[in-house]
Amino acid sequence: MITQQQIREAAVRIQPIIHHTPVMTSQLFDAASGLRCYFKCENFQRGGSFKIRGAANFLLSIPEEDIRKGVVAFSSGNHAQAVAIAAGHLNTKATIAMPEDAPASKLAATKAYGATVVSYDRFKEDREAIGTRIASETGATLVPPFDHPWIIAGQGTAARELLDGTGQVDALVVPLGGGGLLSGSSIIAKSQQPDIRIFGVEPESGNDYYLSRKAGKRVSIAPPDTIADGLRTTLPGAITFPIIENLVEEILLVTDDEIRAAMELLRSRMKIVVEPSGAVGAAACLFHKLPEGIRSAAVILSGGNL
Amino acid sequence: MITQQQIREAAVRIQPIIHHTPVMTSQLFDAASGLRCYFKCENFQRGGSFKIRGAANFLLSIPEEDIRKGVVAFSSGNHAQAVAIAAGHLNTKATIAMPEDAPASKLAATKAYGATVVSYDRFKEDREAIGTRIASETGATLVPPFDHPWIIAGQGTAARELLDGTGQVDALVVPLGGGGLLSGSSIIAKSQQPDIRIFGVEPESGNDYYLSRKAGKRVSIAPPDTIADGLRTTLPGAITFPIIENLVEEILLVTDDEIRAAMELLRSRMKIVVEPSGAVGAAACLFHKLPEGIRSAAVILSGGNL
Repeated sequence: MITQQQIREAAVRIQPIIHHTPVMTSQLFDAASGLRCYFKCENFQRGGSFKIRGAANFLLSIPEEDIRKGVVAFSSGNHAQAVAIAAGHLNTKATIAMPEDAPASKLAATKAYGATVVSYDRFKEDREAIGTRIASETGATLVPPFDHPWIIAGQGTAARELLDGTGQVDALVVPLGGGGLLSGSSIIAKSQQPDIRIFGVEPESGNDYYLSRKAGKRVSIAPPDTIADGLRTTLPGAITFPIIENLVEEILLVTDDEIRAAMELLRSRMKIVVEPSGAVGAAACLFHKLPEGIRSAAVILSGGNL
Repeated sequence: MITQQQIREAAVRIQPIIHHTPVMTSQLFDAASGLRCYFKCENFQRGGSFKIRGAANFLLSIPEEDIRKGVVAFSSGNHAQAVAIAAGHLNTKATIAMPEDAPASKLAATKAYGATVVSYDRFKEDREAIGTRIASETGATLVPPFDHPWIIAGQGTAARELLDGTGQVDALVVPLGGGGLLSGSSIIAKSQQPDIRIFGVEPESGNDYYLSRKAGKRVSIAPPDTIADGLRTTLPGAITFPIIENLVEEILLVTDDEIRAAMELLRSRMKIVVEPSGAVGAAACLFHKLPEGIRSAAVILSGGNL
């Protein structure tokens, strides 16, 4: 069980490492969506996404004798950069297993933050096995991408800052991949505003949570084809799923075209760069996916790495 | 003569109409430029640029009996949208003379803000004459783009907010087109930090201020060919030029390639959209155009309309 108190403690712990990102609003977006929307700009976060929150809280929670042996993670995306930044801050070594065909820009960024990158063939090798092997060989601690209380508590700090900035709102709208951000956000949101209605947003083809909710248990899907590359998880987390089942009213789905339209509006009118995975919450608002009666929404724009 | 007091009064006057835009920083930009840079994000301003500050201050300074007869402006760019927004706020009619071949998006935006657009052939007709004719026929007040004390005082409020956010800095770096933003910013900056060193930045081909400074008088240039379309003025203002001669240390020049590189860094790493004219200050910092010895710079990103 993860408590609001753990999230409050995480906020204090990670404060020296993370940015306190701004909350933005747009009259034009509000007119288009029919809602008053408050956007938490985690695209401006260090490393370009909210992931640094969970990674920093995780690394700062590792016992002193273990953190000196380094950390290891497997990720082709924002989690890799987040672990690299947090490790650099703590003067420890980060080893990141990334697929050989990961985008050159993400490889370069991860290396630039001081991490050692280990490539693997994602069609032949299992990334979890590689991460586990490096961990057991070196004594490094494996940093999971989402399904861990320290990660969840760290990610929840984003919603805490957001709701501190907005005051009372009808709804909280959060991108849903592995569920770390949504589960942590839900715990803190319900503790601060018990009546708030919470929505997770998945890409239509990456609908593992949507289907799992229907089935009443965690079900896995084939690797989805969507532009929202950060939300391509195929199975809800063992820890995150029950939290989300408990606290989240509905899993909303958006199409890639809806995501593109939201990104374009954020770019052309709000002048901000948001990655596809980061824009699903805005897309859900823009395309009226929330239930009738909701007038204001706090929305997490979770990242900006294109 | 325009005083710091007029700028402070303008700030109070326009406060209900404008956004108080954020000041952003980037460790990566600082590492690349060798400076500590503070960016005033006027790309997030209403209408997408700082121009609303001057337009709002101008319209709010027009006597009551005149403002009811409406306002008129000639502009193909951000000034048009700014006048339209300010007029809408005051419930008065705005007529904007725009060239027939202005970008459809700018035409649409100006109309969307409620203005009446009058098209003209910019190869055959003189826009000033058209503006003056409309003004005399309707009794509307002509809103000049930069060379007027009310406009200059309004634009100066951007630097005031910026320096309130940064505290003491070595330099202030401001895009230079007609000189409204730079002259207003210089007056308030010197009153708040007498030792601050102030720099205007022009595109290399749109160097009317640079050449005028060399000549010791206002000289005009041929219409320049630069991606910084908001800085294509061909002659310094009669009011703005002496203020800038008096308070600005140096006019810096940047190439279109340098502007593009700065825009790309702002986009990819800071996740913000800045138009070419708005990025010249960032380009000057990134390409080390400031004199040696300057360690910190407050930089106005003046707009984000692409």
